[in-house]
Amino acid sequence: MKKFNKKAYIQSIKSLHSADQADSLESLTTENQASVLKTHIKYFHPDFIAYLIEETRDDILHMIPNKQLVNLIRYLDLDDAVEILGDFETVELVNILSKLGTQKRERIEESLRYPENSAGRLMNRDYLAMQLNITVGDLIDQLRTSRSGPRDFYNIFIVDDLNRPIGYVPSGRVLRSKTTKKLKDIIYKDIHVINSEDNIEDIAYTFRQYGLVSAPVVNPDNKMIGIMAVDDVVEIDHEESEDDMRKLGGLFVNDFYKGALTSATSRFIWLGLNLLTAILASLVIDIYSDQLQQMIAIAVLMPIVASMGGNAGTQAMTIYVRAIATKDINKSNYSKLIIKEFLIGTINGLALCLIMGLIAYFWFESMILAIAISIAILINLGFACLVGIIIPVTINKLRIDPALASGIVLTTFTDVFGFLSFLSIATFILQL
Amino acid sequence: MKKFNKKAYIQSIKSLHSADQADSLESLTTENQASVLKTHIKYFHPDFIAYLIEETRDDILHMIPNKQLVNLIRYLDLDDAVEILGDFETVELVNILSKLGTQKRERIEESLRYPENSAGRLMNRDYLAMQLNITVGDLIDQLRTSRSGPRDFYNIFIVDDLNRPIGYVPSGRVLRSKTTKKLKDIIYKDIHVINSEDNIEDIAYTFRQYGLVSAPVVNPDNKMIGIMAVDDVVEIDHEESEDDMRKLGGLFVNDFYKGALTSATSRFIWLGLNLLTAILASLVIDIYSDQLQQMIAIAVLMPIVASMGGNAGTQAMTIYVRAIATKDINKSNYSKLIIKEFLIGTINGLALCLIMGLIAYFWFESMILAIAISIAILINLGFACLVGIIIPVTINKLRIDPALASGIVLTTFTDVFGFLSFLSIATFILQL
Repeated sequence: MKKFNKKAYIQSIKSLHSADQADSLESLTTENQASVLKTHIKYFHPDFIAYLIEETRDDILHMIPNKQLVNLIRYLDLDDAVEILGDFETVELVNILSKLGTQKRERIEESLRYPENSAGRLMNRDYLAMQLNITVGDLIDQLRTSRSGPRDFYNIFIVDDLNRPIGYVPSGRVLRSKTTKKLKDIIYKDIHVINSEDNIEDIAYTFRQYGLVSAPVVNPDNKMIGIMAVDDVVEIDHEESEDDMRKLGGLFVNDFYKGALTSATSRFIWLGLNLLTAILASLVIDIYSDQLQQMIAIAVLMPIVASMGGNAGTQAMTIYVRAIATKDINKSNYSKLIIKEFLIGTINGLALCLIMGLIAYFWFESMILAIAISIAILINLGFACLVGIIIPVTINKLRIDPALASGIVLTTFTDVFGFLSFLSIATFILQL
Repeated sequence: MKKFNKKAYIQSIKSLHSADQADSLESLTTENQASVLKTHIKYFHPDFIAYLIEETRDDILHMIPNKQLVNLIRYLDLDDAVEILGDFETVELVNILSKLGTQKRERIEESLRYPENSAGRLMNRDYLAMQLNITVGDLIDQLRTSRSGPRDFYNIFIVDDLNRPIGYVPSGRVLRSKTTKKLKDIIYKDIHVINSEDNIEDIAYTFRQYGLVSAPVVNPDNKMIGIMAVDDVVEIDHEESEDDMRKLGGLFVNDFYKGALTSATSRFIWLGLNLLTAILASLVIDIYSDQLQQMIAIAVLMPIVASMGGNAGTQAMTIYVRAIATKDINKSNYSKLIIKEFLIGTINGLALCLIMGLIAYFWFESMILAIAISIAILINLGFACLVGIIIPVTINKLRIDPALASGIVLTTFTDVFGFLSFLSIATFILQL
């Protein structure tokens, strides 16, 4: 192993963009991260901490000396500061907040009162809201002289007398309009508001669905209290998709940047659950051990039935876990989709059971075996596609994350049902 | 089945946002879609076609009478028009293009010369580029009087004498600056350019990595030829993630909006491949049928070994398929990651082999079986984690989509190796 050259490392990162600095730091070992941050934090742009991935951010933040950490947070945008401070324990949090200016502290505290991942927590409280009757000329004068409000912005929101959003004007449109025009002459009224308690999935859906650049956040009285911008949403939406993808693959966290032991521990839970499922399937097989001894070909073929069911079920489940996340599935189409899945399972079941029946017949020269595996594959495919839609929808109704739990429940069903159906059908035909 | 009430349907969608109109239309049956579009297309906002999902867009476009289709395309933004026209056959395309105005036709043709999914095809050719020495006052005057350039925009790009992008100014910042300031006084220089041949994954990565709102697209001479905006990227990035997720679940296309027969056909390919894999595993089992007959408990336990290997391999594979997509894996960390996966596999293998060894011993009261399954699980877990990283990386090097092909190759390896190792170890110990 080469020795880590801290000087050369600092040289290589100091002129990078803060996002690349964050990536580079994440790729170091924990010891080297701690060593670099302890002595050379000044070579990092303060907002590099906003670009750290969630999984390692907490560890890295705790390596930064307290005084420097407060300085970094002072520099950050409010929404970034809130996101980072949400990770801290209460004692540390109080300690850090006490060192910030009153205004910033109060605004951070206000945001932290909203639940994690809600619009109230994620929004930016710095935005421009104007009334309908102001002219373009007056607006520009006001923007030039006033020091309040954001320095850079993309949309100007229009609110009524009660501070309820009624429209917006893109800043480019203001630049292209005559100074005598009023905002009501150039307003866009197709506004999509975000509620302060909306969660990130809802927000990402609204932005994607309507191609928004920024949107006002309102409180339960419909009054404007902040904005969300698409550049924040793109990151959030990306992480949500990645999250679901990982969960479907049996991972609770992204362990790409974690050490082998931590990764092994977090992956073990899933494997342990799968071991239970596999043992359950073996218990089913054990019931039929006499029949297996009588006709060992059954043992040779039985994994095929379970595997086909598992794969067909996973296909359906993948579709519906995502359809739930993107709100494409609802009461009105649920029963239609159940019928559709049953049809898909039956069609593919018919095709596969014919193929497999012929193979089994020529392989083992046994009509009994061919008939048993054909029937088992047919009913398994229909069953697998059905549970592939019913399981994620039911789990979602129980308020459990369908991406996380569907896979293991599905495997249990398709494995147990796969072995049970094939072995019981074969036994039944053998007895005839 | 209730009869479709076209009048009531039109009533229900005519005041919806175009994105919701597209969703609503997608949820109809093919016959009803055709019927609605044939007679009532005027109740749809022209840009509803830009919101149709890729999988159904082509079918729906072909239901629209040709004359109306040309009208819709006339109304669309250039980038949307290009995206849609990219789906058409050459003959139809020439026919439609001939009915558009010269300027629009030429610009569309220019875009269509770039490959599908490249920045040159996806970019918008309508943007604002200014030079450094212009003052804010002159800029605003020019914007107010000129009719060229986009009506709404968020950033003004700054180019040098050779039309190479060197920075940008957010339009909000222009509004907040004194009229005597020059653009060079308020320019942001941290610009990230997109190359015209960059593909959507590269573009999405750049936007996410640097939190961009819009970015200039340049040709190979580094000259500015267009822009890409984040609201287009958010959609593209979302579709990319969804695509990978589906492929990992064994789906080639999103069949949520397709009929049962079409869905069954597209899912069959994957199931057919999996049948081959399962038969291969059964062939391995068949080699050991004498030993199975001798000790049927081996047949009862053998699915556990294959299942544990499959799950551990899938966990690793999920991590690395995504790491490849997000460019987190490279030559410098590949060998480190291989060692890490081997360690993870060994750690979890040790834990699971102890648990399963004890269970097998007490279940079948056989030390031979307990030892055999323990050794098999240990070496299977190490093997599975190793192939979980090596397979996607190798497949990617062969220029095959790792999300699509990794799963089936992995299952083949873990199934065959799982049965082979357990059965051969058990046979070996039985012979001692």
